[in-house]
Amino acid sequence: MEDCIFCKIVSGEVPSARVYEDEYCIAFLDINPVSRGHTLVIPREHHRDFLETPLELVKALAEACSWVSPAVVRAMSAEGFNLFVANGRCAGQEIDHLHVHIIPRRAGDGLELGWKGGGYGEGEIEEVRAAIGAHI
Amino acid sequence: MEDCIFCKIVSGEVPSARVYEDEYCIAFLDINPVSRGHTLVIPREHHRDFLETPLELVKALAEACSWVSPAVVRAMSAEGFNLFVANGRCAGQEIDHLHVHIIPRRAGDGLELGWKGGGYGEGEIEEVRAAIGAHI
Repeated sequence: MEDCIFCKIVSGEVPSARVYEDEYCIAFLDINPVSRGHTLVIPREHHRDFLETPLELVKALAEACSWVSPAVVRAMSAEGFNLFVANGRCAGQEIDHLHVHIIPRRAGDGLELGWKGGGYGEGEIEEVRAAIGAHI
Repeated sequence: MEDCIFCKIVSGEVPSARVYEDEYCIAFLDINPVSRGHTLVIPREHHRDFLETPLELVKALAEACSWVSPAVVRAMSAEGFNLFVANGRCAGQEIDHLHVHIIPRRAGDGLELGWKGGGYGEGEIEEVRAAIGAHI
C-alpha cells in the first residue's frame, strides 16, 4: 500500500529499530512506547486488521509473537506483558496495517487499564450467547 | 488443574455461556464484560500464560480467535474490537490459564486506553533494539 507507513517500514523505505523478521512478519520498536521495549509485530503483507488477514498469516503472526515476546520480556527484565490488537478507530487503531502490540509490564508501572467489568441482566447472557453463536 | 476455574469451565463442572468450541479451544462470554459480548477464548489444556503455551496451541488459539472475532463483531453490531492478553499479575492477569479477551467496541464507549506513548532518548532505541535482538 503506497501510503502505509508500516508497508514502508517493511520495505525499508522508512527506518525502524527492527528486532525480528521471518518470511511472513517483522517486529520493530514502537517509537512512542507506552513502556520501554514496546514492540510491534506485523505481517509483511498489507492487511487492514485482524478480520481481513488470511488465516495462515494470522497463525504466522501468532508464531512471530511467540518468538518475540519472551525476548522482549527477558531483555527488559519485565515481570509480565500484554498483547494488544486494536481493530478499528473506535478501538484505538491508528495505522491501518494489522499490528500486535507487545507491551512489557511491571508492578506499579501505572499502565493499569481503566476498563471496569459490568454484568448481564437476567436472561441477557443467554441472548448474547445465542446471537454470537448464530454468527459462527 | 484442580483449582483452575477455566479448567472447570472446559470440563463443564462450572457452567458458562459457550459460544464456540473446537478440538483445542473453547470460547465463552466473560461474566464481567467490559462491553456487551466480551468473550474469552482459551485453550482446553491448562497453560499459565502465552509464554508457557506450546506453539501449536498458540496457533490453534489464534485460529479460534479468527472464527470467534467476526461473529462477536457481527452479533454485537460492533464498529471494531480489541484483542487483549494479560500475562502476569502486573499486566492484569487474574486467572492463571491463558485467555484472549475479545472486546467489541464502538465510538464513544468510554473504553479508551489511558496509555500514553512516550519516547526514547538519544541512542536509547538502538540499545533497546540490541538488547531484545540478543534474546531472539
